[in-house]
Amino acid sequence: MKFNNINVQISPKAIIGANVKIGDNTVIYDNVVIGDNSIISNDCIIGEPLNDYYFSEEYENPKTIIGENALIRSHTIIYADSVFGKNFSTGHRVTIREKSKFGDNCRLGTVTDIQGYVEFGNNCWLHSNVHIGQQSKIGNFVFIYPYVVLTNDPTPPSNICVGSTIGDFSQIAVGTVLLPATEIGKHCLVGAQSLVGGKYEDYSLIIGNPGKRIKDVRDLKSRETGESHYPWPYNFQRGMPWEGEGFDSWKKSNGYEND
Amino acid sequence: MKFNNINVQISPKAIIGANVKIGDNTVIYDNVVIGDNSIISNDCIIGEPLNDYYFSEEYENPKTIIGENALIRSHTIIYADSVFGKNFSTGHRVTIREKSKFGDNCRLGTVTDIQGYVEFGNNCWLHSNVHIGQQSKIGNFVFIYPYVVLTNDPTPPSNICVGSTIGDFSQIAVGTVLLPATEIGKHCLVGAQSLVGGKYEDYSLIIGNPGKRIKDVRDLKSRETGESHYPWPYNFQRGMPWEGEGFDSWKKSNGYEND
Amino acid sequence: MKFNNINVQISPKAIIGANVKIGDNTVIYDNVVIGDNSIISNDCIIGEPLNDYYFSEEYENPKTIIGENALIRSHTIIYADSVFGKNFSTGHRVTIREKSKFGDNCRLGTVTDIQGYVEFGNNCWLHSNVHIGQQSKIGNFVFIYPYVVLTNDPTPPSNICVGSTIGDFSQIAVGTVLLPATEIGKHCLVGAQSLVGGKYEDYSLIIGNPGKRIKDVRDLKSRETGESHYPWPYNFQRGMPWEGEGFDSWKKSNGYEND
Repeated sequence: MKFNNINVQISPKAIIGANVKIGDNTVIYDNVVIGDNSIISNDCIIGEPLNDYYFSEEYENPKTIIGENALIRSHTIIYADSVFGKNFSTGHRVTIREKSKFGDNCRLGTVTDIQGYVEFGNNCWLHSNVHIGQQSKIGNFVFIYPYVVLTNDPTPPSNICVGSTIGDFSQIAVGTVLLPATEIGKHCLVGAQSLVGGKYEDYSLIIGNPGKRIKDVRDLKSRETGESHYPWPYNFQRGMPWEGEGFDSWKKSNGYEND
Repeated sequence: MKFNNINVQISPKAIIGANVKIGDNTVIYDNVVIGDNSIISNDCIIGEPLNDYYFSEEYENPKTIIGENALIRSHTIIYADSVFGKNFSTGHRVTIREKSKFGDNCRLGTVTDIQGYVEFGNNCWLHSNVHIGQQSKIGNFVFIYPYVVLTNDPTPPSNICVGSTIGDFSQIAVGTVLLPATEIGKHCLVGAQSLVGGKYEDYSLIIGNPGKRIKDVRDLKSRETGESHYPWPYNFQRGMPWEGEGFDSWKKSNGYEND
Repeated sequence: MKFNNINVQISPKAIIGANVKIGDNTVIYDNVVIGDNSIISNDCIIGEPLNDYYFSEEYENPKTIIGENALIRSHTIIYADSVFGKNFSTGHRVTIREKSKFGDNCRLGTVTDIQGYVEFGNNCWLHSNVHIGQQSKIGNFVFIYPYVVLTNDPTPPSNICVGSTIGDFSQIAVGTVLLPATEIGKHCLVGAQSLVGGKYEDYSLIIGNPGKRIKDVRDLKSRETGESHYPWPYNFQRGMPWEGEGFDSWKKSNGYEND
């Protein structure tokens, strides 16, 4: 229903892989490379030209690389000069600025806004309406929930831009703000609507305004089971590479022995 | 100005009522039913196919029913398999996922994001940029203000999904987060930027982080009048079915005797 | 790449200045005036008709005036009956309702939502996803960061609409809510995720939930320099009219002697 080749524009300088579908009203700009078996749905813009395009006659669009098996939902705008691993997917109306780097198996929810100059590892899942400021650096298996904002300017407005870092397997719950230069370790859980600055060791449960480490996540008991849900990879497998195998077995053969 | 029949696609399997207008660049997918006298503005997607569409050759689009007198503003995306009562309206860029059920006279503001598997009664008004998680259940005459988020996973990430419930006539002010399984009674007011979990009786005023019931809303005096504005239906009539008649008279003949 | 004149609609009643570019799939409605050297990118709607358009046969679109050198990015919707000074720019998917008035050199970020009936001075920069309620009145050189909301109804729902005011040079950090009728003086800094009501004198640093004045911004020392960054115009020049000249010299010849 979506792929009628109506009002589609594809630059002759784009490289489109095998078995790629491109939806109606979508535009693919110069020097975009789309991996095999990808789906770019309707009304998307891939390789959106950078600011200089509007003002320079000699503008040349930088390369944009989207890995195989991508699923980009409608109205998504991806600026040129970004790189995405395989199995990348987005909801609707996602905006991703230039110099964004995503590993494999990342997912971004509807209206999420990536400001560019950021780096994500593999298997990061961002829910709807997440805002990632420039210079953020995110590990692997990090989940970020709706209306979370990562900031970078400690004394606005200024020319200082220091992003936050988030370690592997950490979770940032809904409505939380990370102040500039925040460092979240591995396997942390940041509670909903927290305002967090500073540096936190692995396995921290961080909540509040101002946010504080209140305990080790492994000591956080679930109401349902009476045991801790964390580290969550032992208790959640859907869509994860250890699905079926279990985290314990998987981690040993995948470089996460210490997690 | 909007209805020039330019770049419009309407499935032959859609059923379009009498006197319906459909804006330019809008797509109506299979098995959509649109009630009489509705307006679907430009650049909308009605009956957006579910995820299976991308991966199954046998995909059949479920039914989507939009009641009479709808006004859907531009760039709204409504997934298949949802049902809307009469007089439904949206702002721009609203996203509504599958298995959403709305009663009559509901309004959703710009960029609002309904995650699907939710149920709303009649006369609910959601302002801009509201996020409703799956399994939320909302009564009648509930107003939800910008940047409110209803969540559903108590130990993220997990396979548990327990939405919140909100009773008739309750108001959720701007920037508030409802934690999973929150139960808000009838005629409650939840203050701005609160973080709310637990269960609240009717007529509660709930504010803060963490949110607490601090008084009965009927004891909340207005600065302007010195009297309580709540229960608000006695003091606000615009667009309500008791407009002209008054709430006291209306409620007796409409099943709200006890409100 | 964007200006191929594909699926563009321009009303014969619009007045388009010299050297204006209009992107593919963009619509310019009746009685829009676009200043010289402006760029309206793809998929925009300029002069969006007001609500009456849908219901009145005699509807006439009010005038919309966009000053020279505008840069409107894709998917932006600007309602009719607004006025913008020169050098106005937007990110993607911005929504601006009717009776919005902006001075010169204003910038609005992606997904920002201006509810109309608002007034901004010159050189205001709003970041992504800012929500400005009706009846807000903002001075000059005001910066507003992501997910800030300005509200206007003290007892929702009601027919009272009292917006906030923000004085020249003030900064509102990420995630903050201004309650109805808040008055922020000049050169104030409101910290991240604050909930602010009441009236604040010039040079206030305001933080918290509930927000309070905690000190004079001039006493706020920077970690980097040990000196105060505020008043910021002495320490930030990029894109400001005092760039090169310095704030001290500029302010004397531009009516800001007392700032």
